[in-house]
Amino acid sequence: MADTARLAINLATIREQCGLAEAIPLCARMGIRAVAPWRDQIAATGLRETRRLLRDWGLEVSSVCRGGMFPAAERTERRQRIDDNRRAIEEAATLGAPCLVLVCGGLPPGSKDLEGARHMVEDGIAEILEDAASAGVRLGIEPLHPMYTADRSVIVTLAQALDICDGLGSRAPVGVVLDVYHLWWDPDLPRQIERAGSRILGFHLCDWLVPTRDLLLDRGMMGDGVIDIPRIRGLVEAQDYRGWQEVEIFSARDWWRRPPEEVLRICIERHARHC
Amino acid sequence: MADTARLAINLATIREQCGLAEAIPLCARMGIRAVAPWRDQIAATGLRETRRLLRDWGLEVSSVCRGGMFPAAERTERRQRIDDNRRAIEEAATLGAPCLVLVCGGLPPGSKDLEGARHMVEDGIAEILEDAASAGVRLGIEPLHPMYTADRSVIVTLAQALDICDGLGSRAPVGVVLDVYHLWWDPDLPRQIERAGSRILGFHLCDWLVPTRDLLLDRGMMGDGVIDIPRIRGLVEAQDYRGWQEVEIFSARDWWRRPPEEVLRICIERHARHC
Repeated sequence: MADTARLAINLATIREQCGLAEAIPLCARMGIRAVAPWRDQIAATGLRETRRLLRDWGLEVSSVCRGGMFPAAERTERRQRIDDNRRAIEEAATLGAPCLVLVCGGLPPGSKDLEGARHMVEDGIAEILEDAASAGVRLGIEPLHPMYTADRSVIVTLAQALDICDGLGSRAPVGVVLDVYHLWWDPDLPRQIERAGSRILGFHLCDWLVPTRDLLLDRGMMGDGVIDIPRIRGLVEAQDYRGWQEVEIFSARDWWRRPPEEVLRICIERHARHC
Repeated sequence: MADTARLAINLATIREQCGLAEAIPLCARMGIRAVAPWRDQIAATGLRETRRLLRDWGLEVSSVCRGGMFPAAERTERRQRIDDNRRAIEEAATLGAPCLVLVCGGLPPGSKDLEGARHMVEDGIAEILEDAASAGVRLGIEPLHPMYTADRSVIVTLAQALDICDGLGSRAPVGVVLDVYHLWWDPDLPRQIERAGSRILGFHLCDWLVPTRDLLLDRGMMGDGVIDIPRIRGLVEAQDYRGWQEVEIFSARDWWRRPPEEVLRICIERHARHC
């Protein structure tokens, strides 16, 4: 059984219904102990006000979403993105987040050079390591589903993410964030989760719907799809992962259209029953 | 440069515009030397009539699509699917196709057991090997993109497809069909293509569009997307593959709406220029 005390809510799950000023009190009143805000949500509310809300309502931050997006055609733009990652690290530190999630970025516009883009990701992460170490924030490389290779992440397997970690050395403040949606299909997953070991910095939950009607915004609630979540949770916990289990659902046609109380209530129920 | 004499057209590319009685003469008149019919197209035209058309118009068959779809919840249904694969082998033999493409099948309805479904695939292929050998038809396992894991193929990497081949022994009439759309994202692709060696039975072409608006029916024409096709072709040819380069495009919103002559003309141009 999933440990209900470890449930966290990624606030993208109710992003269309409410901003942080409403979402944070709501989560707290429903007994949720941790949330993960996105940077655009933090910007809309203000960083200090976000911190105040979290403290006042006694919520922890499971992670901040997101840094990354390193590949770009021009060097100037790559520098700007690295600067933006530095700001993201500061924000994560200000909110007391243990981890900044990195969505690494896809191919630069017009490029077909996967290898080149992957090197830009490695270089980008290497550039911000020291900032992360100083701020006490770890960088969580999140491999995305291969259907996002072109436009969101050229890092699409856990093996790749761990290869990057290996390349940065064992003392680098870097690890991996595992999302069942992105990884469930991978025949190599059990072996790679074992390889990840203590480097697992986050564990994200939702479900894969059949049919899936949109590549980005049609994620399912746990239990409504085909992912064997308890099996993957078991693999993760066998590595002594005891961190947050963070629900993150992008759902333009269903969950984003429901009242946020209802979404959160069902997240809590389904987490207990299907994770 | 791509070898224009090796261009084949998978007839799914113009399936909404015309049946085989129109498509086969059209391809022949436009200088195309080989086509790949789908079984529903063959059934609609009749097997003997399809053979007659191919002979009269002097076209070879690059492959028949498709066998596979092995996993099912009930044993009776799994038997029926194996029988259907036997018929597919006979059809491929009748048409002189060197290869029957296997789309292996997804999770049975209601199941979340990926490993179980993968075993059903292995068992199913093992069951039909002798039929394939007797008929002189090779079975081409086509790994699909991971986004089809749930509903079309639990075999989603070239490594997995080759593991199945390895398990069946070196004398089994089985190999792999490589589609750039399904495989381009895989960081392990160069190594696995080298491993495939002489077992490459087919090479399929289209492109990955950005954005992709539909998981199934929004494939792009070569050159309109982000896949570095010449790079992958180079890897395939380094293994001495000299078979057909088969264009297969499912495109509900674009190519299926154009006159078939226009689609074929652009296939020919783009194959010469972008493959």
